[in-house]
Amino acid sequence: MSPKLKKSLFTVFIGAAMWFSPMPAGVTTQAWHLLAIFVSTIIGFILNPIPIGAIAFTSITLSVILNVLKPAEALSGFADTTIWLIVSAFLFAKGFIKTGLGRRIAYNIMHAIGDSTLKLAYALALSDVIIAPATPSNTARAGGILFPIVRSLASAFDSEPDKGPRRIGAFLMMSAFQVNCVTSAMFLTSMSPNPLIASLAAKAVPGLELTWGMWALTASVPAILSVIAVPYVLYKVYPPEIKRTPEAKVLAAKELEKMGPMSMGEKVVSLVFVLCLTLWATASMTKLDATNIAMIGVSIMLWTNTLTWDDVISDKAAWDAMIWMGSLVCLAGFLTKFGLIALFAKAVSASLAGIPWLVSLLILLLVYMYTHYFFASTSAHVTAMYAAFLTVAIVAGAPPYLAAFSLAFMSGLYCGLTHYGNGPASIYFGAGFMPQGTFWKLGFIVSVVNVTIWLTVGPVWWKVIGLW
Amino acid sequence: MSPKLKKSLFTVFIGAAMWFSPMPAGVTTQAWHLLAIFVSTIIGFILNPIPIGAIAFTSITLSVILNVLKPAEALSGFADTTIWLIVSAFLFAKGFIKTGLGRRIAYNIMHAIGDSTLKLAYALALSDVIIAPATPSNTARAGGILFPIVRSLASAFDSEPDKGPRRIGAFLMMSAFQVNCVTSAMFLTSMSPNPLIASLAAKAVPGLELTWGMWALTASVPAILSVIAVPYVLYKVYPPEIKRTPEAKVLAAKELEKMGPMSMGEKVVSLVFVLCLTLWATASMTKLDATNIAMIGVSIMLWTNTLTWDDVISDKAAWDAMIWMGSLVCLAGFLTKFGLIALFAKAVSASLAGIPWLVSLLILLLVYMYTHYFFASTSAHVTAMYAAFLTVAIVAGAPPYLAAFSLAFMSGLYCGLTHYGNGPASIYFGAGFMPQGTFWKLGFIVSVVNVTIWLTVGPVWWKVIGLW
Repeated sequence: MSPKLKKSLFTVFIGAAMWFSPMPAGVTTQAWHLLAIFVSTIIGFILNPIPIGAIAFTSITLSVILNVLKPAEALSGFADTTIWLIVSAFLFAKGFIKTGLGRRIAYNIMHAIGDSTLKLAYALALSDVIIAPATPSNTARAGGILFPIVRSLASAFDSEPDKGPRRIGAFLMMSAFQVNCVTSAMFLTSMSPNPLIASLAAKAVPGLELTWGMWALTASVPAILSVIAVPYVLYKVYPPEIKRTPEAKVLAAKELEKMGPMSMGEKVVSLVFVLCLTLWATASMTKLDATNIAMIGVSIMLWTNTLTWDDVISDKAAWDAMIWMGSLVCLAGFLTKFGLIALFAKAVSASLAGIPWLVSLLILLLVYMYTHYFFASTSAHVTAMYAAFLTVAIVAGAPPYLAAFSLAFMSGLYCGLTHYGNGPASIYFGAGFMPQGTFWKLGFIVSVVNVTIWLTVGPVWWKVIGLW
Repeated sequence: MSPKLKKSLFTVFIGAAMWFSPMPAGVTTQAWHLLAIFVSTIIGFILNPIPIGAIAFTSITLSVILNVLKPAEALSGFADTTIWLIVSAFLFAKGFIKTGLGRRIAYNIMHAIGDSTLKLAYALALSDVIIAPATPSNTARAGGILFPIVRSLASAFDSEPDKGPRRIGAFLMMSAFQVNCVTSAMFLTSMSPNPLIASLAAKAVPGLELTWGMWALTASVPAILSVIAVPYVLYKVYPPEIKRTPEAKVLAAKELEKMGPMSMGEKVVSLVFVLCLTLWATASMTKLDATNIAMIGVSIMLWTNTLTWDDVISDKAAWDAMIWMGSLVCLAGFLTKFGLIALFAKAVSASLAGIPWLVSLLILLLVYMYTHYFFASTSAHVTAMYAAFLTVAIVAGAPPYLAAFSLAFMSGLYCGLTHYGNGPASIYFGAGFMPQGTFWKLGFIVSVVNVTIWLTVGPVWWKVIGLW
């Protein structure tokens, strides 16, 4: 039996076994069957008998034929605004790469501080921290802004998905992605689910108000430590082959000279970039949608011929992400809608009775953190579990602000666990620089680093500022 | 000023002029603005300053930024089941072409009767008539079954979009498409909006029952005449360069010999084809969704490696169709939802007061027929106008069954007018064998032929069978 067939059969077997096994009390047949399909999909993603897009496509097909979802429901993920922000981000990045603007920016960074790979990673991290408070869409921040630069840096060092990915590309991708997760937790406005969290907290516990300033102050110390630690840890456990890059400055100067003055295309992309950045930064006032802003950027590039229509329809990575992420967003969304997640949260909270609040909160935080393996969207996870877990923690005796903020921060940090956990994950993974196993392993290692920092140094800092 | 810039400015000008011009009474601002965007989009489609996909993408982007649609609404077309039936049909066709099964079938037809191009067109038409009653999805019938054969026939005669499209491909594509529109009107079960029509008629006029047998009998004579006339007219006004194909039989025999026995891939595609055909034919009993059936077919091809995932994500034509058709389905859907179409129907009916019913019915039929230029979906058009027009006709004094059936038949025939009028249109147009202007011109000519047959011979036949 071929390994592919073995993996395929095992994937199907897990799904079938769950499908026909007895259901826990309170779970509807439909919800249980959807869970069987979802778990089987995740197994398929891990074993990879065929590409994940094909697995995801099959899963939504099966969800209809097996009478779990209606035809229109199964396709609903393809109209998701997050999905089209990701598609637009891919196209955005294409403009950066195609016109050479990405390379120009990358060479400028290299020229300024690029004498070591680790310094490059920190330069990227610093940029992320600076723009994070102004970009409530972490997907746009990653896909539209930092990913194209990382992608261009990799190319500049001759590191491509199919040729020397470990030279420098894989490390920088992973570092940029994990830093994005940290900066997402850092500000009320650095990730769109954060305002949702604030509103959920206020609803769950009257008077509990998570303000912008309080959020930034509370997150500051552990976040800065994480931003420093994450690139360094990745540098140690997942070292790039190129470490010292003394020739980089010279090379960068030479390349910049070779590129000459900015082309029309580069100017258009620069303007679109500044326009989108401004629109994203002011989105909370203008009420403009992050996806729509990205689509405006793509439209401008199309009308100015900076991107051709053929660039769009031949962007395989975009369509790949659209299908697998759209399918997964759909399945995960219906898991929540069918009440399975709420039921799970309830089961967890029941088992916490009679345990000291510190232990309860710790368990809740870890469960909340690591259940993200089952979510394809931060918003879905937050919507499903945040309010329930916060309530349980407070009932168990935890100080409200401590519980509210620590759970809030996990919501950014857990995005780093998988390649489907949020928008940036699928962009950095979709670039193809590392296999899924590596992505998950590094994601787990970084999660341990982050959890350790945020749950040891964090509480001390929070005691200092009087949070509890 | 470059022609592209001129066309772009004119497209924008029309939209802006409508946007700021005074609104007719009863139209909401939102509906009027959407109409301005829609009309501008159609102008853009006609003038083509940039590819239609880019125009459609810009239109839905504008609809959000201009506050006409919500972000999620603007993307809703991408989750439309018709859109994914089209995407699946493209992938289905890829299986036919890639494995060579399409070529094998084509060579077999050629071998049997292929001594002239016109006979080939009739062979395709006959196949369509035979499978039509069993395929309630005309998109599946076109995209999944006949289009791949037409596509393969074109390739076999060395006629490609970019190399000799007029040799044979363009003619066969147009003939197959227009015949598909005729067969769509032919049976209650040959197009999914037909059952909808029957239900709308029953609701509008109590006791008015359009049965399967009555439908087939009423349509039979004009439909058979149309199936005979349409390929012939197209053959005259849009002649293929290759006319006599005496060498085709010999060539076909040779090619079939060269191909040898069927490959594994061909067998899989054949089985998938028979399976989907069976499922489509029994869909009214099993209640299976046509899109889901096509997706099952694609899934099977993916798991058997008959199609690779790369085949899927690199199918530019599929993603092109998805974006422009999805955008248009969305805009057209909201035109209806905002009540603009209903208002239009009302305005038309008001102007018919005091006119003899025969004249009224004729005007209603022609208006109903040619307003399809404004629709990207048969279902939307039927939903918006059929019941209103039927009511008006009956109020004007037309015999109910005559009015109900003649309006019903137009619903199939008008699909041939544009390249976005229904699913098959976008498939045959998307294949790239003819420019949009030609597609519209031929669509209009065939519409005149069809309207003439159905509204002259038709009424005589309907008198004979006692319909009025």
